[in-house]
Amino acid sequence: MRVPLTVNDFLYRAEAVNADAVAVVDEPVQPAVPLRTMTYRELLVRVRAWQAGFDALGIGEGERVAVVSQNAARLLELMYAVPAAGRICVPVNFRLRAEEVEYIVRHSGASMLFVDPELDEPLKTVQAAHRFVLGGETDEHVMRFGATPRPWSEPWEDATATINYTSGTTARPKGVRITHRNLWVNAMSFGMHLRLWEGDTYLHTLPMFHANGWGLPYPLAGLGAKQVVLRKVDGAEVLRRVDEHGVTVMCGAPAVWNAVLDAAASWDGDVPGRGRVRIVCAGAPPPTRMIQRIDEELGWEFIQIYGLTETSPIVTFNRTRPADTTLPAEERARRSGRAGAPALGVQLTTSDVGEVLVRSNVVLDGYWEDPGATAEALADGWFHTGDGGSIDDEGYLTISDRKKDVIISGGENVSSIEVEDCISHLTEVAEVAVIGVPDDTWGETVKALVVRAPGTEIGEEDVISHCKQRLAGFKAPTTVEFRESIPRTATGKVQKYKLREPYWAGHRHGVH
Amino acid sequence: MRVPLTVNDFLYRAEAVNADAVAVVDEPVQPAVPLRTMTYRELLVRVRAWQAGFDALGIGEGERVAVVSQNAARLLELMYAVPAAGRICVPVNFRLRAEEVEYIVRHSGASMLFVDPELDEPLKTVQAAHRFVLGGETDEHVMRFGATPRPWSEPWEDATATINYTSGTTARPKGVRITHRNLWVNAMSFGMHLRLWEGDTYLHTLPMFHANGWGLPYPLAGLGAKQVVLRKVDGAEVLRRVDEHGVTVMCGAPAVWNAVLDAAASWDGDVPGRGRVRIVCAGAPPPTRMIQRIDEELGWEFIQIYGLTETSPIVTFNRTRPADTTLPAEERARRSGRAGAPALGVQLTTSDVGEVLVRSNVVLDGYWEDPGATAEALADGWFHTGDGGSIDDEGYLTISDRKKDVIISGGENVSSIEVEDCISHLTEVAEVAVIGVPDDTWGETVKALVVRAPGTEIGEEDVISHCKQRLAGFKAPTTVEFRESIPRTATGKVQKYKLREPYWAGHRHGVH
Repeated sequence: MRVPLTVNDFLYRAEAVNADAVAVVDEPVQPAVPLRTMTYRELLVRVRAWQAGFDALGIGEGERVAVVSQNAARLLELMYAVPAAGRICVPVNFRLRAEEVEYIVRHSGASMLFVDPELDEPLKTVQAAHRFVLGGETDEHVMRFGATPRPWSEPWEDATATINYTSGTTARPKGVRITHRNLWVNAMSFGMHLRLWEGDTYLHTLPMFHANGWGLPYPLAGLGAKQVVLRKVDGAEVLRRVDEHGVTVMCGAPAVWNAVLDAAASWDGDVPGRGRVRIVCAGAPPPTRMIQRIDEELGWEFIQIYGLTETSPIVTFNRTRPADTTLPAEERARRSGRAGAPALGVQLTTSDVGEVLVRSNVVLDGYWEDPGATAEALADGWFHTGDGGSIDDEGYLTISDRKKDVIISGGENVSSIEVEDCISHLTEVAEVAVIGVPDDTWGETVKALVVRAPGTEIGEEDVISHCKQRLAGFKAPTTVEFRESIPRTATGKVQKYKLREPYWAGHRHGVH
Repeated sequence: MRVPLTVNDFLYRAEAVNADAVAVVDEPVQPAVPLRTMTYRELLVRVRAWQAGFDALGIGEGERVAVVSQNAARLLELMYAVPAAGRICVPVNFRLRAEEVEYIVRHSGASMLFVDPELDEPLKTVQAAHRFVLGGETDEHVMRFGATPRPWSEPWEDATATINYTSGTTARPKGVRITHRNLWVNAMSFGMHLRLWEGDTYLHTLPMFHANGWGLPYPLAGLGAKQVVLRKVDGAEVLRRVDEHGVTVMCGAPAVWNAVLDAAASWDGDVPGRGRVRIVCAGAPPPTRMIQRIDEELGWEFIQIYGLTETSPIVTFNRTRPADTTLPAEERARRSGRAGAPALGVQLTTSDVGEVLVRSNVVLDGYWEDPGATAEALADGWFHTGDGGSIDDEGYLTISDRKKDVIISGGENVSSIEVEDCISHLTEVAEVAVIGVPDDTWGETVKALVVRAPGTEIGEEDVISHCKQRLAGFKAPTTVEFRESIPRTATGKVQKYKLREPYWAGHRHGVH
């Protein structure tokens, strides 16, 4: 028997098996509503009320519904309700400027737009056929409680469930079309490797808009696990929630875990969750020192994954192997910093020029209204990640760099990530980004942008000599600039093309 | 991107990620070979050697390869090698008589037949175009080491991977066609609920021919877990292996766990695996007392599932909910005895007459060359299990009886399972089967067939009065017969139609 693999499988089981379990602990938002805990039964009532509301407004199957919101139960409800009835959810980065949101709404052709109450004013110019501010007003105007939503006429696993616009470290955002089958396979593979179960409590440290909260809201619902909303990442607040709600699983970029480590240093008493919490890191390669500190200072299990919005996202998974638990802490941390081994259902290889290629049911169906980009990304039956990497003897992938961020100095390839990892071992360094800048002799040369840790006084020569002792000479930075901060995207990524821009004005930027 | 969901996903990952991990610890068989441990790399070399051997013999895609064998690494290799190259594996119950095996080989149209060395003599009359005795001779004649097997020309997830003949509690065995997609979804759903991971060591207490070892060899390989072969179930030997190999997971019918409980009673020292082992029980409803003893006497986690060969088999899963761990032991055991909650991707309901119906990607594609039985089983888009059951407020299924085994006495339905569970609480009772026998007044009346525990002296009236105190009067047996044993199928099921036969000679067996 063949039944379409859709997100409905997860919602069906949530209600059939765990109706009385706590689904979501929401966070008060503006306009203020009381802290709200709802069960999966209540969640499904609301999901159906949204769907009946869309029916009443005449929003048809396949139409796009865009949502711009910080993490909130309402966003989660829409991520379930919209695709489960055959419509397409477009979760938008809430940190974008009005023109950027405008571009996405127009490009996706969304007929409905929901915005968080706090974003109503800044996004006033962004319009759609139906525009609603999430909150009390919407409950009245859109949701239809008690009405039975029209069933999805022909559930189909290859139908697009969501369109996720890439955060754009290189160019204009593209709309990544993720199908129900993509989400389903990602949910099962990720869930299985993570050993997710009904006893887990998940804290939404990750923005839900980001690759659909990496796809985890679906298996979490399917297993009946509790989800705690976090509207804004704050290290101390994360620790308080871990303590209060008995959190066991969280996801985030290295910046999140750095914030938690900082907060833990001044935490009063034992850091909560020791031996209980497992965290999943992605979005940027984690410094080895950070991994080691998470183990030593928090006692949390560190898991590294690698993936892209285009891969739903689970491509690789890296949990310390049972046989490796006795290795020295630093060696374990080094091994944990690798992107990981291919997840179940993922075939992985690298091209002649070292680009990471992926074949899997988690790979996007295509880019929304961009057949050229789709054909390029999926050439030869493999998805071209744009990331450089290598696969070691154990089958583990290590990402060396985004193809466009590799520094080529005197014909030698330098991985900016490798240099960053080396520099981040200096305790005086809070943050670092390494880029290539023009050089008359070498074409490019290595430059490090460094944020000093508070109260420290490290100098340019200290950084350079530290690197020269540990790396091949051509990899060491030739210049170091100290800065107050390094700008990042909403998902914690450094946009290196922006950092490079001022240095390359008037130069031709070689081969990349 | 769409990639066919096939068993190759599991083999690919086994080799890509866990090549050096121990795959199988085999058991010496006749003709004696040394106890053999092989890695996943070695396993895959052998898988390819089988495939190249089939190529050389001209066995084409879609052809059937039948295997009659006790649990052995060689059987496991064939369960991987045959479907992974687009052929169809037919694992046959090794306890069947020659005529029964003959029927299956002929009905499936198998062009190849492998038999275990010990079965060569008893199955001498069973022939096929290519017949081989597993062992040294076959290694020479079939396997082609070093040759590259022909790739599966068009991998297709709806292709039949295995044909599993039902153990036939009611009639002639039917060939259940299980597709690659069936196996894949079963593997992910079962694996996720079981929280299977690379740190697990699995002991094959379950016959591998039985629903492909319930489908677990696929996720076990995909995750790189160690598999320990057990050729013959013996309670004490199970305990020794648990101890020696650090076993963490096992599956089996209640009869297996009863044998282990018996062995544990005379085990010297602490029973191994306390707090570490989880066992999965299926095949027959477990007596509540047995579940409680597993908890108290072994300290192993008890998980109940329900499924059929036709469902790959995972339909429901029942692990004690985190919230229930503080319930009194007996209440916990009672709740654990339920078949369980629908697994991810399974829709479950009951018909007007109380038959359990299933809709899922784990449901068979159809019966081999039996369109009539297929149409009947899959009528109205649901799979008709033939089992009676009910779903409680928590969404948990309880199996009341096989539809054909329900006793109708004076118009009242009596669940033979309920009566058996009641009787099995008597410590003087080792085994019990309850059936309906003809009765002039009531149409049918309840009869209990009881095997006394060694050295006990319970009588008919004791059993009847025990039931009358605990069950509605019409459910209590009117007669009790004491026997030396109760015959079971290879998978631990009681064939009630056989037990009923002598009593019904010359009677019409009412509605069922």
